Amino acid sequence: MADSHALEALIQALRRLPGVGVKSASRMAFHLLQHDRDGARTLAQALAQATDAVHHCERCHTFTEAPVCSTCLDKRRDTTRLCVVETPADQSAVERTGAYQGLYFVLMGKLSPLDGIGPRDIGLQHLFQRACDGVVREVILATNFTAEGEATAHVISEYLRPRGLTITRLARGVPVGSELEYVDLGTIAHALVDRR
Amino acid sequence: MADSHALEALIQALRRLPGVGVKSASRMAFHLLQHDRDGARTLAQALAQATDAVHHCERCHTFTEAPVCSTCLDKRRDTTRLCVVETPADQSAVERTGAYQGLYFVLMGKLSPLDGIGPRDIGLQHLFQRACDGVVREVILATNFTAEGEATAHVISEYLRPRGLTITRLARGVPVGSELEYVDLGTIAHALVDRR
Repeated sequence: MADSHALEALIQALRRLPGVGVKSASRMAFHLLQHDRDGARTLAQALAQATDAVHHCERCHTFTEAPVCSTCLDKRRDTTRLCVVETPADQSAVERTGAYQGLYFVLMGKLSPLDGIGPRDIGLQHLFQRACDGVVREVILATNFTAEGEATAHVISEYLRPRGLTITRLARGVPVGSELEYVDLGTIAHALVDRR
Repeated sequence: MADSHALEALIQALRRLPGVGVKSASRMAFHLLQHDRDGARTLAQALAQATDAVHHCERCHTFTEAPVCSTCLDKRRDTTRLCVVETPADQSAVERTGAYQGLYFVLMGKLSPLDGIGPRDIGLQHLFQRACDGVVREVILATNFTAEGEATAHVISEYLRPRGLTITRLARGVPVGSELEYVDLGTIAHALVDRR
């Protein structure tokens, strides 16, 4: 498209975004350069800043700019409960229900042998240490109700149950086969109350 | 999602891309930070570089880094023919057919009164000067076969026809209602040959 190396490089870089092919990338590049150069500069700065500043919370692995995130530091939270979710977006969905006051552990993924994602990649060893700290009494498994999310929940459950912890799973109010991030909050709230 | 201003800013910045809502933006930010920080840095650099380096060709208005693009400077092109397209992507589609050897004028948009896009926004005055330079004999209107593309072609045709230029339109081999960028090259090549 036209004769500019910078433009070609931009289209190639945009293709690294998930779900963006060459046509979408061209449209995005065209839109930014023709109609929103200010947006392009804002995005460039936001990307640079986020890659520099955003790290993982030492305790729960979610994205944060501090060593430990504000949720883990919040003294009002119930430290005896630990909710295990796949992503920060899932954590945010549970949080927005207002039905949960405990702490979190964010796997930042799920077990997926076909994609080469094993226990180490989602920090399971760290989760096991965290759950067996003597304070946590209940671990709520809120991984997605997909094949991989169920398998991940199963592995965690098998490891932690013999260690005297109560292991619960979000109730099946959440439609099987769907992903937590896209479920309406009422359903998630219901599933939290009915956890088994 | 999590407690990071840099992450929030990144999600908001990604939403300025066309077709990207808050869920997609969150997914993109999560993917870049978790799996492809190198891609995020590459994209930040590509955005900064493209906004700095890419401008419009003085003659045809397409994207280029030089004052005049390489197509306009190419001595082997037929300077008596001028093909008018809406975007650089459309220009690229026509170019890839290999069926056209003339020059281009890229409108960088189309007449769209409802969106407040008038003749000045797509450089029609510049096109009229360009077409009436005494060298151009035929203007091929290759705007999209949508309502707005047809209207744009009509306005250009009405202005240029009385000035002794041959005005042609891509043949109706291109499906009505569709956009040029997404049409297969064979159809575009056919439509170029059958122009009327």
